[in-house]
Amino acid sequence: MSDIAMIHAAAERFASVGRVTPLLSSDFLDEIAGRRLLIKAECLQHTGSFKFRGGWSRLSALTEAERQRGVLAFSSGNHAQGVARAAKLLNSPAVIVMPEDAPRIKIENTRSYGAEIVTYDRESGDRDAIGGVIAAERGMTVVPPYDDPHVIAGQGTAGLEIAAQAKAAGVETADVAVCCGGGGLASGIALALAEEAPGLRVRTAEPERFDDMARSLAAGRPISNPSQSGSICDAIVTMTPGELTLPILANHAGPGLVVREEECLRAMGLAWQRLKIVLEPGGAAALAAALFQPESFDGDTVIAVATGGNVDPAIFARALATLEP
Amino acid sequence: MSDIAMIHAAAERFASVGRVTPLLSSDFLDEIAGRRLLIKAECLQHTGSFKFRGGWSRLSALTEAERQRGVLAFSSGNHAQGVARAAKLLNSPAVIVMPEDAPRIKIENTRSYGAEIVTYDRESGDRDAIGGVIAAERGMTVVPPYDDPHVIAGQGTAGLEIAAQAKAAGVETADVAVCCGGGGLASGIALALAEEAPGLRVRTAEPERFDDMARSLAAGRPISNPSQSGSICDAIVTMTPGELTLPILANHAGPGLVVREEECLRAMGLAWQRLKIVLEPGGAAALAAALFQPESFDGDTVIAVATGGNVDPAIFARALATLEP
Repeated sequence: MSDIAMIHAAAERFASVGRVTPLLSSDFLDEIAGRRLLIKAECLQHTGSFKFRGGWSRLSALTEAERQRGVLAFSSGNHAQGVARAAKLLNSPAVIVMPEDAPRIKIENTRSYGAEIVTYDRESGDRDAIGGVIAAERGMTVVPPYDDPHVIAGQGTAGLEIAAQAKAAGVETADVAVCCGGGGLASGIALALAEEAPGLRVRTAEPERFDDMARSLAAGRPISNPSQSGSICDAIVTMTPGELTLPILANHAGPGLVVREEECLRAMGLAWQRLKIVLEPGGAAALAAALFQPESFDGDTVIAVATGGNVDPAIFARALATLEP
Repeated sequence: MSDIAMIHAAAERFASVGRVTPLLSSDFLDEIAGRRLLIKAECLQHTGSFKFRGGWSRLSALTEAERQRGVLAFSSGNHAQGVARAAKLLNSPAVIVMPEDAPRIKIENTRSYGAEIVTYDRESGDRDAIGGVIAAERGMTVVPPYDDPHVIAGQGTAGLEIAAQAKAAGVETADVAVCCGGGGLASGIALALAEEAPGLRVRTAEPERFDDMARSLAAGRPISNPSQSGSICDAIVTMTPGELTLPILANHAGPGLVVREEECLRAMGLAWQRLKIVLEPGGAAALAAALFQPESFDGDTVIAVATGGNVDPAIFARALATLEP
């Protein structure tokens, strides 16, 4: 089980290879949100998303023998890149099992980090069987995208930074909106904030139709989504909350936020225009909630975690088209 | 005359309102550049460019009576926004004299900060006469875009950050490429580095046909450009090097770099894809030189200052179109 000591240990291992991402703001976005809005720009992390934190945390905790045998991960993209870069830095072999329809830039980048890519058909293929055979044959350690104590602790390093940066900005009380797939980042941040900044409270942000975490938090038990594909927010589409992450968020997070895809595209456009950062749709869900659903928050400050920026130009063009001419 | 004491004083005044911008990097960009490449992301500064540093430095050094009478600036955009935001924070009236053909977003943003906008025709209007009358009538202080000791000192605060960040990254020797219009940022950084990181050397970067600084440095005397408009790098198009900035750069900078517009667009595309930051053409000139003119540099590390990101969507689309499909 992840705890604050594991998060601090992960932060120590991360210090020499990771990036402290900045907390940004814009007068123009404050005006839209109707309150002070601070944006934790995790798109500026290595590999373009927070996933490098968790990947590095897990891999840097392997034994030397485990490292030499290597790691295997299932991912449509950001987790793949985070694990692949961590493996490259540690000279560890990596196999990444990806759906065939993952954004091409994510597949190419993962391969560029030296990982071996195995693809499967999202509708008909059994990725667990495919990956399981490879991992068993080669003695590889499977690195889960979120339901793993070391991965959660690694994502929690972003929470330590948020706690320190909020304090430096004079913010003691705020909701912290976090884009949420399986809940690894949200639960890691929640654990960190509970200890380091108890006035800050996590709120998960998910796209419509894929709001399993919001519904599970409301119901008090895990509830699955009817589908696992068909959203431009591909980075944060999961079937069900994690077994480790849901209890953490049930303890520490407020009600889940749910945004429309169109709101994510508008948030991407405004982040481009006002913050000069690049977001992917799934990485803009928290910012979208903060900008366009002000009634979902109390208090005079919201912190939104902008979790990733790995997006194809064609989808980005749709985001720019939402800006007033 | 600006010196290191003025820069440190400017940094102290800047600490409570400014942003320490991150030093970014990408394995993919290192590969293109053929060496380690670190990018100082000044596009993430308030107002989307480094200009807020100099504007704040000048305005925060005014007397109370001067502040109440207000300030006037001539600018096609980024300096305008930097001065306007500084004036707003200090409750000082601001008049900005802008060419009619300045990018619309820059005009609108400047107005949004509460400044009064006066436009003139770039070919036929005499902006100095127009601004001079207003400044004289209202007793306003004119804030020059670069040829002013306080402005240079303010831009130099970026140099203090680069010195500290390079040291933290283990870099003792490197060229620091800086996008250059009149040379305020380049000369401020040069003064800071001469004292704080003498192994780091400034190299100015300018667009073809507007390379007055490179030619002036080579000739040892100020040389003007034949034209003052007609570049997508509008932010760094000036007629002649500054009277204060040229001598500083003649003392401290290496040979000037000159890039093609097409190289700036490609650098913008790669910054979007690999760094997740938004650059305008003029703000990408230094990165373009580092990426596409590796033979212009010695040593195993280059630091490129990405100076601004205020760009219209149509020009940004041209940058995205340079990326391989």
